[in-house]
Amino acid sequence: MISKNEQEMLRAIAEIAPLNQEAKAKASERLDQLAKPPGSLGGLEEIVLTLAGITGKPCSDIDKRCVLVFASDNGVVEEGVASAPQGVTAAQTINILKGVTGVAVLAQQYNTDVIVADMGVNADISHPELVCHKIAYGTKNIANGPAMTREQAIDAITFGFELAKGKVKEGYKAIGIGEMGIGNTTTSSAVIAALLKLSKDEIAGVVGKGAGLTDGGYQKKVEVITGALSINNPSSEDAIDTLCKVGGFDLAAMAGAFLGSAYAGIPVVIDGFISVAAALCAARMSSNAREYMLASHRSYERGYKLAASELKIIPYLELGMRLGEGSGCPLLFSIMDGACAVMKKMATFAQASINDDYLDEIKKGNAF
Amino acid sequence: MISKNEQEMLRAIAEIAPLNQEAKAKASERLDQLAKPPGSLGGLEEIVLTLAGITGKPCSDIDKRCVLVFASDNGVVEEGVASAPQGVTAAQTINILKGVTGVAVLAQQYNTDVIVADMGVNADISHPELVCHKIAYGTKNIANGPAMTREQAIDAITFGFELAKGKVKEGYKAIGIGEMGIGNTTTSSAVIAALLKLSKDEIAGVVGKGAGLTDGGYQKKVEVITGALSINNPSSEDAIDTLCKVGGFDLAAMAGAFLGSAYAGIPVVIDGFISVAAALCAARMSSNAREYMLASHRSYERGYKLAASELKIIPYLELGMRLGEGSGCPLLFSIMDGACAVMKKMATFAQASINDDYLDEIKKGNAF
Repeated sequence: MISKNEQEMLRAIAEIAPLNQEAKAKASERLDQLAKPPGSLGGLEEIVLTLAGITGKPCSDIDKRCVLVFASDNGVVEEGVASAPQGVTAAQTINILKGVTGVAVLAQQYNTDVIVADMGVNADISHPELVCHKIAYGTKNIANGPAMTREQAIDAITFGFELAKGKVKEGYKAIGIGEMGIGNTTTSSAVIAALLKLSKDEIAGVVGKGAGLTDGGYQKKVEVITGALSINNPSSEDAIDTLCKVGGFDLAAMAGAFLGSAYAGIPVVIDGFISVAAALCAARMSSNAREYMLASHRSYERGYKLAASELKIIPYLELGMRLGEGSGCPLLFSIMDGACAVMKKMATFAQASINDDYLDEIKKGNAF
Repeated sequence: MISKNEQEMLRAIAEIAPLNQEAKAKASERLDQLAKPPGSLGGLEEIVLTLAGITGKPCSDIDKRCVLVFASDNGVVEEGVASAPQGVTAAQTINILKGVTGVAVLAQQYNTDVIVADMGVNADISHPELVCHKIAYGTKNIANGPAMTREQAIDAITFGFELAKGKVKEGYKAIGIGEMGIGNTTTSSAVIAALLKLSKDEIAGVVGKGAGLTDGGYQKKVEVITGALSINNPSSEDAIDTLCKVGGFDLAAMAGAFLGSAYAGIPVVIDGFISVAAALCAARMSSNAREYMLASHRSYERGYKLAASELKIIPYLELGMRLGEGSGCPLLFSIMDGACAVMKKMATFAQASINDDYLDEIKKGNAF
């Protein structure tokens, strides 16, 4: 029996449209007229095509953009899977709003706003700009049972969805999806393992050392995740079930924000490992939503590769970053600005006084 | 018998200093105090350390920067190794100055100036901002003999060196190295093959399809390069000899600009395939110069990998670009801005109110 809230959410998600192929084709035509060997701007051209498909306009920009940071605590930290104390979640959540963490500084640098939502930080925190939607003081420990109820998962997903949708109404043209939550590489690993139906032996391949676990801590983490999957038995066919059994309020809201961005028709950027886990959940709920996603940087957390490969998405930055917070998103926004500039400002072959013989060569597949 | 000009140049190159290890150590100390898991900003932290070593200051910026574009024609195009007509070099050289090519548009986007030097375009071109140092109307055809005399190579290297040095005097804090020259993937392949002492069989592995050759054109290109190396027999121990036998005026000036940037103590950014070939020449002339180089994006031209691996340099962007012109440099400048911002603006653990227990964990190698 599906709740009314869930029904409404599923109805909204079902409305996420496929990309506009006509606009993509027009953008592609224009790209091939620009004075350069066809395809020679690689990823920048891919970005232009994706934006065209999303916005329905061959040429666009992302001059107003933000990173949504969903903060929450995870009950599983009581198993000792994270080396940082839980209090770091609360401290860093406020520090992001103070503008002094990695994502905050990079967002300022790249003309990006940061919106922080408390989905379930295990402390009473406040800041004039903090968006509050505290579902509980952290999730339950997934080593013992489900992280949350299905109603709570729907609540978190819906909140993320509506937050993203609302930002688009305010005029944002691109959204990045970030998080802050001690213990969330553990939940993300569990979610990816569940959705990809990994066997017990394969689970170690999806678990990494988070931001800096010791070897002993890592072994413990693998055991906890294996145990959590065995006790909770999440359905690999049901991303909502997976989120509520072994996920977190952050992951659920992030999945919702991926979906809400797609629903509202703007590009949405994946940060690192936790963000890609949420993206995978969103793509399972709507395959159309996948087309609105761009991956910023390659995370070296081990499960990233599996999730990105399942999503068929390739990141553009190789920075070996593993900070989280959404810190990779502003960096990609900057690259996306370059892609938009190329489309708007480069001369065509005709404008560039490059002669017809050369255009004939281009048509034959030759170039500079 | 070494000419006076060459002696002077070699004397200047010998003065290129190693990086300042003390400043690097201070920067590293500061990075580890910032409120993040140690090393978790990956490439951004590497960039900070490199800048510190170069400038001697733990914290710096690159707010004034430029791309130097060296334009020249290559006699080898008469062998049919490039599919674009030679006239494209002249047309695009002027189009860069008009602000409408790939590098020009990306430079505008990322607050970067573009300086274009005519080192040997095979046409009389003019533009108020064109720097003229036309050594000849293109090089000689390397399929028949050396591209240029040793005096011409010294002239080109010295000019690139002085141009970069002069820009630093004008206040530029970072330089990117680009080019425009139909046929220069052929000369670059030949230069890399010579410096890496590739066997005949290995040469095909360093030759790519340039910006868009057909299979037939590619086969021809491999034959021309193999022939040029055999006829000219460049010394793999002497980068100047290699440049003058199978290089180009663009490559020689670019190598000089890498050296001049290092000499003047600023970071210098490699673009793609042709740029990495010039960087390899520069590093052979001064191993200290290598330490001033950063690689922007990974070129998929086949020889890039070999040259980058020899330089032990890893690019930060995976954009599948193959345009040349220096177009990858402004994109990396933007990433470098982010690295500088992190260093300047992120809170330390103490400022972030993250408690001593956690700092103890950090010291044990643990983290978030």
